[in-house]
Amino acid sequence: MNKPDFHQPPALDSEAMDAARHRWATRAKPPGALGRLEDLAIRLAGITGQCPPPVPTTPAVIVFAGDHGVVDDGASAWPSEITAAMVHTISQRGAAINAFADTIGADVTVVDVGVQTPLGSLPNVRNERIRPGTHSIAHGPAMTTTDAEAAICVGAKIANEFIDHGTDCLIGGEMGIGNTTPSAALISALTGQAAHTITGPGAGTPADGIQHKQQLITTAVARASSCAGPLELLAHLGGLEIAALAGFYITAAQRRTPYIVDGVIACAALCIADALAPTTATHAIAGHRSTEPAASAALDHLTLQPLLDLDLRLGEGTGACLAFPLLKAAALALTHMADLPTSIS
Amino acid sequence: MNKPDFHQPPALDSEAMDAARHRWATRAKPPGALGRLEDLAIRLAGITGQCPPPVPTTPAVIVFAGDHGVVDDGASAWPSEITAAMVHTISQRGAAINAFADTIGADVTVVDVGVQTPLGSLPNVRNERIRPGTHSIAHGPAMTTTDAEAAICVGAKIANEFIDHGTDCLIGGEMGIGNTTPSAALISALTGQAAHTITGPGAGTPADGIQHKQQLITTAVARASSCAGPLELLAHLGGLEIAALAGFYITAAQRRTPYIVDGVIACAALCIADALAPTTATHAIAGHRSTEPAASAALDHLTLQPLLDLDLRLGEGTGACLAFPLLKAAALALTHMADLPTSIS
Repeated sequence: MNKPDFHQPPALDSEAMDAARHRWATRAKPPGALGRLEDLAIRLAGITGQCPPPVPTTPAVIVFAGDHGVVDDGASAWPSEITAAMVHTISQRGAAINAFADTIGADVTVVDVGVQTPLGSLPNVRNERIRPGTHSIAHGPAMTTTDAEAAICVGAKIANEFIDHGTDCLIGGEMGIGNTTPSAALISALTGQAAHTITGPGAGTPADGIQHKQQLITTAVARASSCAGPLELLAHLGGLEIAALAGFYITAAQRRTPYIVDGVIACAALCIADALAPTTATHAIAGHRSTEPAASAALDHLTLQPLLDLDLRLGEGTGACLAFPLLKAAALALTHMADLPTSIS
Repeated sequence: MNKPDFHQPPALDSEAMDAARHRWATRAKPPGALGRLEDLAIRLAGITGQCPPPVPTTPAVIVFAGDHGVVDDGASAWPSEITAAMVHTISQRGAAINAFADTIGADVTVVDVGVQTPLGSLPNVRNERIRPGTHSIAHGPAMTTTDAEAAICVGAKIANEFIDHGTDCLIGGEMGIGNTTPSAALISALTGQAAHTITGPGAGTPADGIQHKQQLITTAVARASSCAGPLELLAHLGGLEIAALAGFYITAAQRRTPYIVDGVIACAALCIADALAPTTATHAIAGHRSTEPAASAALDHLTLQPLLDLDLRLGEGTGACLAFPLLKAAALALTHMADLPTSIS
């Protein structure tokens, strides 16, 4: 059995970032006039270690899918069968993520790390199943640390494969009914914020179900307070697709490949990734601010400012995908803009 | 001499908008989970009168350029010659707008409606010069109403030409040293907000110059209080490129073609366009929130919520251009997403 590689990613390249700052200062525009696009290109220089940073042209969207035992305890208004149904929809290119990925020329690959319903062979879906969903965090650990490690290894393997085949920007998404509950639990445990302040409705918890969801999370987080470290915490509170996303992000950071983070589940995965392999999050591009309050708690915890704020709460990688054109525009502008006109330089 | 056509654009198509709302409600996702992207697609349905709205595939960027006499009265730290220098830079594809337009597959055309320095023949630049810049609003009207009408007609003509040649999303930008001053003046006059609350540094007014700029604006707005209507107000306080943009927006709205509004100068043009041809702004897509305070005042006045908020303050159409992929994604998702999986519908 493989063990995940948690070695710390390289530091952002400060020389490349300084060069990018200098390059912006001499482009044909008033200083700072491109605002956060300038910061974004500087960050891309730091991540990739190059100035100007390579313009990303070959993004890929990978959607990790898994189910959650806590759904049987009332964490979601939707049954776990919907996870498999939505994997079918993505496989047939009928989900929101397929439409958004089309606009950036990216393929969508689903990686089944633990869907409850067996999927058989589907186009654009990879079978990397570890087990048919987690146990309910209402009653004990979601999975063993061995299963968590296996899921992390799947995410790392997928990231390595895509990078080896030329992907220059990784966009991770997820599909898993009930997964805002383990995500809020992980974020609560890692940020210290109480469940009642960060629990949102997710994909459709009815108003009278939110208190129940908060109670589930509070109890699970309290039980997990005895965990010895982030891996055990992930096994206690997490999900298979969350663990896979964490491994995916760690590998992207280790390999200096830009990756865009999506909504609350992705944010939970990044929090745990950064705890497992410190500084992983310094390599992240936060795509958008989900309306789920735990997402904002996680972004603050990681000192990440998202690019978009469009009241999205779908997941699948949709918000990350929408942010990709901004990376391209920022890198392209820093690369191709002329110097200041000589009459003003 | 042509007179501008100020007939009121058609109302947004409420049947198409209702159909879009219904279509979203039956797509494979939780209700409302795509947030403002759903609103955007509904708006596109209303603008175009079709559900699903046509996916925009052929955007065009048109940058209207003109100079401003008020620069001689200290409105900008940059000399008017920079306008011509930047038109050269755009012509040679070296400006930020060229890089951003490349990412959406759009060509950039500059329309010279009143640059002070004669430009001669340049690639991608059209000569529609009305006069070599405006008079200073520090001392009297910027231009005659006849010149304002001529500039509006240029904008309308350009919009008509591009729409006739297949452009399905119009992105207007501008270039004109000093043009945040007339823009703030117009916005102050049309919203009733005092100059000192909405005047920002523009492209680089030094801190000690802002008070001077506020004073210029306050005086000009007070003088313009005798104006009989929006056309006279535009002639008193505006600019040739602002008038052209106003005509461009009015025509886009009249012809049910989506158009994306950029920063503070574009917002000023839209305010005056909406005063000249009421409801023009109901057809607008606000691309981004400029850091210039007058832009937010104008957006509030027109009840428009911008898609992006990235601390941009460059103009040229850059913020509008960055928002285009969101229109495409919204329309594509509404068009191609599958129905809810049968097990949950």
